[in-house]
Amino acid sequence: MALRAAGPMLDPCPPGQIGGSYKPLTEAEIQRIHGTALDLLERLGMAEVPPRLHADLLAAGALDNGAGRMLFPPALVQAAVDQAAKTFVLHGRDPDRSIEVGGNRVYFGTGGAAVQTLDMESGLYRPSTLADLHDFTRLQDTLANVSWFTRCCVATDVPDNFDLDVNTVYALLKNTTKPIATSFTLAGHVAPIVRMLDIAAGGPGEFSRRPFLKAHISPVISPMRYGEDAVDVVYACIDHNIPMSCITAAQAGATAPATLAGFLAQSLAETLASLVMVHAIQPGFPMVFSNWPLVVDLRTGSFSGGSGETALLNAASAQLSNWLGLPSGVACSMSDAKAVDAQYGMEKGITSLAAALAGGNLIYESSGMTASLLGASFEGFVLDDEMHSNTYRALRGIEVTEENLGFDAVCEAVLGAGHFLGNQQTHAAMERDYFYPSLADRDAPRTWAENGAQDAWSRARDRARTILRDHRPAYLTPEQDRQIRAQFNIL
Amino acid sequence: MALRAAGPMLDPCPPGQIGGSYKPLTEAEIQRIHGTALDLLERLGMAEVPPRLHADLLAAGALDNGAGRMLFPPALVQAAVDQAAKTFVLHGRDPDRSIEVGGNRVYFGTGGAAVQTLDMESGLYRPSTLADLHDFTRLQDTLANVSWFTRCCVATDVPDNFDLDVNTVYALLKNTTKPIATSFTLAGHVAPIVRMLDIAAGGPGEFSRRPFLKAHISPVISPMRYGEDAVDVVYACIDHNIPMSCITAAQAGATAPATLAGFLAQSLAETLASLVMVHAIQPGFPMVFSNWPLVVDLRTGSFSGGSGETALLNAASAQLSNWLGLPSGVACSMSDAKAVDAQYGMEKGITSLAAALAGGNLIYESSGMTASLLGASFEGFVLDDEMHSNTYRALRGIEVTEENLGFDAVCEAVLGAGHFLGNQQTHAAMERDYFYPSLADRDAPRTWAENGAQDAWSRARDRARTILRDHRPAYLTPEQDRQIRAQFNIL
Repeated sequence: MALRAAGPMLDPCPPGQIGGSYKPLTEAEIQRIHGTALDLLERLGMAEVPPRLHADLLAAGALDNGAGRMLFPPALVQAAVDQAAKTFVLHGRDPDRSIEVGGNRVYFGTGGAAVQTLDMESGLYRPSTLADLHDFTRLQDTLANVSWFTRCCVATDVPDNFDLDVNTVYALLKNTTKPIATSFTLAGHVAPIVRMLDIAAGGPGEFSRRPFLKAHISPVISPMRYGEDAVDVVYACIDHNIPMSCITAAQAGATAPATLAGFLAQSLAETLASLVMVHAIQPGFPMVFSNWPLVVDLRTGSFSGGSGETALLNAASAQLSNWLGLPSGVACSMSDAKAVDAQYGMEKGITSLAAALAGGNLIYESSGMTASLLGASFEGFVLDDEMHSNTYRALRGIEVTEENLGFDAVCEAVLGAGHFLGNQQTHAAMERDYFYPSLADRDAPRTWAENGAQDAWSRARDRARTILRDHRPAYLTPEQDRQIRAQFNIL
Repeated sequence: MALRAAGPMLDPCPPGQIGGSYKPLTEAEIQRIHGTALDLLERLGMAEVPPRLHADLLAAGALDNGAGRMLFPPALVQAAVDQAAKTFVLHGRDPDRSIEVGGNRVYFGTGGAAVQTLDMESGLYRPSTLADLHDFTRLQDTLANVSWFTRCCVATDVPDNFDLDVNTVYALLKNTTKPIATSFTLAGHVAPIVRMLDIAAGGPGEFSRRPFLKAHISPVISPMRYGEDAVDVVYACIDHNIPMSCITAAQAGATAPATLAGFLAQSLAETLASLVMVHAIQPGFPMVFSNWPLVVDLRTGSFSGGSGETALLNAASAQLSNWLGLPSGVACSMSDAKAVDAQYGMEKGITSLAAALAGGNLIYESSGMTASLLGASFEGFVLDDEMHSNTYRALRGIEVTEENLGFDAVCEAVLGAGHFLGNQQTHAAMERDYFYPSLADRDAPRTWAENGAQDAWSRARDRARTILRDHRPAYLTPEQDRQIRAQFNIL
């Protein structure tokens, strides 16, 4: 224990661990799903193609079927995949916080748009506010396992759409230097917000040279059609060199088949339709291939995010995207629980482990989300951060080397002390190979009771309150802040 | 919704789903770990071999190194693996409840020896009692995902060891007809308890013809030695045709290396030492190859069951055992949490999913256990049952068939209604492919608040109380009960 106390604290399982050892689909199954997706794009195609995109798609090799649908020959889809950006950097304003998307590297981050906040005082839900967004942003700024931060809640107290988009990005700029992400309600909001981003980046044009914000866009509306406003945002983002997560959010049994195989075929086709769109506009432009299979509880029609089906489908989605060589985005750790309780932990545990083991590159919605994505929770953020360390530890796997196998060390311990406590190899492994949680309760039952029999929710509440009391970053200089306030209605 | 309400309720994800799609180790890594395990058995060998076993091992081909250790040539180990029972039936007293162990089939069950019960009234821990054991047994009797039941707690109010073993088995016989399991404190307890089992089975010798109880035994004490009392129990069980789970419970950093690879090599060697023992006594006798990697928190020396390391190591153990073709037993769903809280759910979720995806055949400790196996919880049992359904659903995977891919159905829905709600394929998939939880909260935040803002712990408490009030099985006839009470001190 003395050695341990004296040693350096290394993170044994930092973000970016390698996934892919869980393969929910066989190679033959991948081929069949992919084949059906190609068939859907070639023979059913996409509806409601906005005129500008229609022209670009035609030029790229798509066909108009004369009945309102655009058909994509397999060769066009293959060209889009071949020329797609396979890896790219999501820049942090602080370069040390940048991450590289692609391969089998796994990063947890956020992606929510909760409209309610789980209030820390009442333990109940209330509409989320701009103040909440500032608080969530500075809270997660201290959490190592939120590798990028998308605004997790909507500031429902900001009624004007432009003010909402502006103040959302302002909250991100002020409170974190990680890679950030947001949504643009309209394409016309992109250029002015880039002016604000330029101020933070150091001058006109600086943001686009090294973009540290990506856009979350859903240019495809299931089933199998484009959404005009979102497509306009895509054009604006490409104009300003804003990398994009093009998100397919089909819902099984509602906007896509309830059969899991059919669902994956359609949602893969739809995400490929986003990729072909980007390819037709600017080949190779950075796009996270974000195929988020969502599940509806067909008893009620409500979205459900915490099930075995969700775990399986998102794992399969990650496997399909990685098989194509594309940067995969999936959604997991989306509990249906309202309380921060055993259901919360279980649903987050199984969905995030499945997606991570399958190699999902960017795992959205992974921190702080509750209530089937309707809610966000401060306590949830700190608990999820520790969960992700456990998941990363599992992903890191087992280093099978001569030294780690340690035949001689085993013989020595067995024939000597008769145990492994306190020897040099044990001490080195403790420091290097084990994650030691700081929130999880590992006390004996008696100690736990003597200390007040706290549950995880209340321990996390204490932790979140301490962080929010102490961590008050101001990542904009007074001069940057003054410039932004001079040009925008900062609330 | 009307169709749904009218339809039959089939379990879309019953126990026995197929695992193995998660492979934490590569083939080359398995070979190296296995090679080191063989080296340990051949060159370091096992100490403290009881005389009777010493003779049997010598006869089977083991060598005495003259310095108190028995060495196992690789050919002997290979013969033990080759001739081992690869699959066998764990009988339920009710034949419909029997399960077949082996292959990549996954079953959750119990295996604990908690000494404390999480009291439903106080929410705190107290010593577990014989009454608790009766209650736990009849509670789990209603839970489909406890596929076999080992006594989950120790009746600490029964001081005499023989009375304890007798009353433990009596509680199992009275309250469940699933496959059951217990531990024998001493070999001399086996024969009398078989007499009690015979009464339940219908007459002398009947139990051994179709044994519905298996024994949990730890004949190897880490590191690398046998335990005499447990070995004696092995002989007695083989005499009475009681199948065995021979459990290696090495603790990383204490009784085995802290390096994960070295740990797995030693614990594999030790579990193979159990198999060689069984092989030397009676080749092919049914033994669950139960290699449970346990983790110690090296800050305190306390056992910890809820981490990413535990998830990974037990998954790797399952993979190694299945690679050898042996029926694999691992331990998962062992939270360190004392409360039934978010930590509880998360730790159980990640450990049990990992072990199941890796194909662990019998996953012990999977239901109701808390507090690093020191505690057992009624609420935990009912919550874990629903978690296992989610895990089984994930394991079931995605059936990629022409019909499920449903190219024509997608085209029809897209070109027709524009959605998939209410069509025949959707309805059929709802019934067949989705698990609908009955405890998990999927309500809207407002509904949840209006209904009292319950958490999972309190919902589970209500459910457990209802079951314990209503389910009062008496699986022993009055005559059987009378006969048992005439011969044994039933408390």
